[in-house]
Amino acid sequence: MTTCRLAVWGLRGVARVTLANNPLTGALILAALYWASPWQGLLGTLGALASTLTAVIMGQDSAEVSGGHHGCNGMLVSLLMGVFSSAGDWYWRLLLPVCLGSATCVFVSSGLSSVLARWDLPVSVFPFNIIIILYLLCVGPDNLDFPHQPALPPGALAPNSTKVVAVEVMRGIPLGVGQIFACAALGPSLLILGAVALYSPLLAAHALLGSAVGSLAGLSMAVHHHSLYSGLSGFNGALGCMSVGGLFFTFNWRTHLLAITSAFLSAYADIALGNLLGTVGLPACSWAATLTATLMLLLTGSLAAYRIPTGQVMAPEHNLHACSQRAAGNTTERERTVV
Amino acid sequence: MTTCRLAVWGLRGVARVTLANNPLTGALILAALYWASPWQGLLGTLGALASTLTAVIMGQDSAEVSGGHHGCNGMLVSLLMGVFSSAGDWYWRLLLPVCLGSATCVFVSSGLSSVLARWDLPVSVFPFNIIIILYLLCVGPDNLDFPHQPALPPGALAPNSTKVVAVEVMRGIPLGVGQIFACAALGPSLLILGAVALYSPLLAAHALLGSAVGSLAGLSMAVHHHSLYSGLSGFNGALGCMSVGGLFFTFNWRTHLLAITSAFLSAYADIALGNLLGTVGLPACSWAATLTATLMLLLTGSLAAYRIPTGQVMAPEHNLHACSQRAAGNTTERERTVV
Amino acid sequence: MTTCRLAVWGLRGVARVTLANNPLTGALILAALYWASPWQGLLGTLGALASTLTAVIMGQDSAEVSGGHHGCNGMLVSLLMGVFSSAGDWYWRLLLPVCLGSATCVFVSSGLSSVLARWDLPVSVFPFNIIIILYLLCVGPDNLDFPHQPALPPGALAPNSTKVVAVEVMRGIPLGVGQIFACAALGPSLLILGAVALYSPLLAAHALLGSAVGSLAGLSMAVHHHSLYSGLSGFNGALGCMSVGGLFFTFNWRTHLLAITSAFLSAYADIALGNLLGTVGLPACSWAATLTATLMLLLTGSLAAYRIPTGQVMAPEHNLHACSQRAAGNTTERERTVV
Repeated sequence: MTTCRLAVWGLRGVARVTLANNPLTGALILAALYWASPWQGLLGTLGALASTLTAVIMGQDSAEVSGGHHGCNGMLVSLLMGVFSSAGDWYWRLLLPVCLGSATCVFVSSGLSSVLARWDLPVSVFPFNIIIILYLLCVGPDNLDFPHQPALPPGALAPNSTKVVAVEVMRGIPLGVGQIFACAALGPSLLILGAVALYSPLLAAHALLGSAVGSLAGLSMAVHHHSLYSGLSGFNGALGCMSVGGLFFTFNWRTHLLAITSAFLSAYADIALGNLLGTVGLPACSWAATLTATLMLLLTGSLAAYRIPTGQVMAPEHNLHACSQRAAGNTTERERTVV
Repeated sequence: MTTCRLAVWGLRGVARVTLANNPLTGALILAALYWASPWQGLLGTLGALASTLTAVIMGQDSAEVSGGHHGCNGMLVSLLMGVFSSAGDWYWRLLLPVCLGSATCVFVSSGLSSVLARWDLPVSVFPFNIIIILYLLCVGPDNLDFPHQPALPPGALAPNSTKVVAVEVMRGIPLGVGQIFACAALGPSLLILGAVALYSPLLAAHALLGSAVGSLAGLSMAVHHHSLYSGLSGFNGALGCMSVGGLFFTFNWRTHLLAITSAFLSAYADIALGNLLGTVGLPACSWAATLTATLMLLLTGSLAAYRIPTGQVMAPEHNLHACSQRAAGNTTERERTVV
Repeated sequence: MTTCRLAVWGLRGVARVTLANNPLTGALILAALYWASPWQGLLGTLGALASTLTAVIMGQDSAEVSGGHHGCNGMLVSLLMGVFSSAGDWYWRLLLPVCLGSATCVFVSSGLSSVLARWDLPVSVFPFNIIIILYLLCVGPDNLDFPHQPALPPGALAPNSTKVVAVEVMRGIPLGVGQIFACAALGPSLLILGAVALYSPLLAAHALLGSAVGSLAGLSMAVHHHSLYSGLSGFNGALGCMSVGGLFFTFNWRTHLLAITSAFLSAYADIALGNLLGTVGLPACSWAATLTATLMLLLTGSLAAYRIPTGQVMAPEHNLHACSQRAAGNTTERERTVV
């Protein structure tokens, strides 16, 4: 029973990375990861379980634990530790930092939530971004136990010598959705997209739209072709677009435009942060999308009226429904007052 | 009518950079910029208009828009984009990032204001500093479309081989006021100083005093002579001195000393941040003065009693008058209570 | 009379660095510093006095001044300025930045306290960490007046060629307590440990435990042997362990485990930050321990129940006593209610 519940919480954590809140979506995504690479699938499973379990032991808020807020960060940390490792698959020694790193996410998550709650902001994937950067810095560039490839500063790369291949860029757009989980294979990426669509077609549409916007931004800045083709240019745009388009804001044409703006800002900020962190051999992870989404949630003015309080966020379709019901309720009430 | 109002808001934004709130001051400063370089004048005008217009479209608080809080950041971003560009004047392609960057300032400004409002802090020019750094990082050191010169780390420069020329340093003090608008010509700088004096002589005096303090700090740290002669050493000191001396604090001898301290801290912090950001080829912009002024506004203890709430800030002379009136009111009230 | 009071405040400031609040502990620590190096002792005395005096002049909260919150930061800044200076002992010109830097700490401290008070967080040694980094950046790597050795990035060091000597590592554990004051001699370090034990044996035990944890973390990451032997690997762990174990949390077996976790996080974060800041020639100071301790104080969930409000923090033994009294009081009250 308890094991089953832990599994459901872990799967919710997997789904939460794409802002979905559904164990079935999580199971499909996990299947896609195992399909792409069984080793990465194992790491992800372990990370989600380790951080969820740590949160239970530390006595964290049970609604947050069962909603997968802790599992989500732990999973991302372990997936990225696997991707940056240059020791190859089935390098069992990596399981130690994977478990410890995932557990540490709970501390960062818990502490940050106290600070961010003042502005009704979600902790989002800040803990993942902090812990993965600290891990890469801590093991250093040439660790014997945990070797990893340093991120190259863009100036060190040879400039693009060939022309952009349009088909490859088009292929990079769905790959951008897969890259949210550091997965660069087309089949699993499409399965992940399908899993998101199962939870909410609107969310999946924004993911694709955001990834396309990210590729466009990458093209305009003449980034290295590999980034475009592998979907690395797209995934920050996808995350930035998803969080605004329908999830944290009621969907309408104004917030739709805001979601596209958010995707552009995320994508350009990702290029900027990549250039900055590349100078010290670090990757930009999803800092750009996380910061941009947080900025959008802080917006004042007339757009703030469409924002949904963090505690009431549901699937975009439900948000829309709840909003129209509230509007109807208000009308009824006003009519009653008039009568 | 609307165009006229937009123009006034834009001019207030231009004046706001020097902490003044007066369209006439803004018009004179803009004239000084066109005098120094018509291209820079055009960029500044465009930036101020683009960000003000974006703020109107986004439905930002109308008092903030008409006060020029958005125009000010947009203008600075576009002026600095022009200065750092190595493509020369009348490079029309630059207008695209100028418009987009100025518009983005509104998002950052709006988001930051939610956070800073908790401590009754103004957003100040934080959005400008963030956006210009992200822009320079994003286009990178050798972009073909938007080339720009990287800031050199101080170690890379040859040490000063000649003695300091006192007259040149003296000339650098008024230039420090012009450098707030990235303007390095003496005539326009003096016109800018005059425009500030038109709004408030006390503010202009603090600008000169702060610039002198900045040059002194630069001399003590043996910075490169070019920085002293061009006013680059002085402008952070000027900004730090202006914001404390009379504007955000009621003017008296204690706050005057605080203003001088603020100028020294701004100037030394500017040298420190310049050395740090120079290692990755970035300029320090006005980060030092903005952070120092924010720190001063957060001060607790007996100095906090002189602080003027952000919503009631006027010209230094008006602040002084309002304060003495309040004091008189208090006395009358106390007398009444006694009676 | 006033001089005597100032001396007591200064000595409290010296003790406050090790989280103790006792002038006698401060006097013993100061004696240990004079024993290790009279020049460093002089610098520390001067720094503690300069910042306490500045706080008095600026009209800071008198409870904070007399508690030594300002003296503590000023002392650390001046000690570290002395350690990083490469001009040797009795280099009188250094007294100028020592006094100015210590005084500046009061501004940073006062400003930060406004921000951190929202979450009932102590300012801790954030001002010291900020000011020493700004000082090192400002004077730059090859200043003629204030020369100092740059911190080397770990990649630039030759890898460890010999085996670890266990005895030397054991010797590094008490040295880690001394390194809190940048003191690398065994005798004075033991005296400092004794001075802490005089205030609270529990605090001293946690200091040793944390230093041991830090050395363990350093061993696991194969840091340079010099760091292990000199205690530099241990002092962040010691600080992280002390602040959680008994001081800011009521001591029991759960918070004891949290203190060990805090020591590990501090030590690993120190290695990470050392690698990051080393790339620009800066030391990591006690950023890691300060950030980790702040994170621990922000924790939500069932562990937050053991947290002691900042205003009621006393020695660990007193905390424990006060807590058991409160519990007894609650029981009595409940019994009364039942009756």
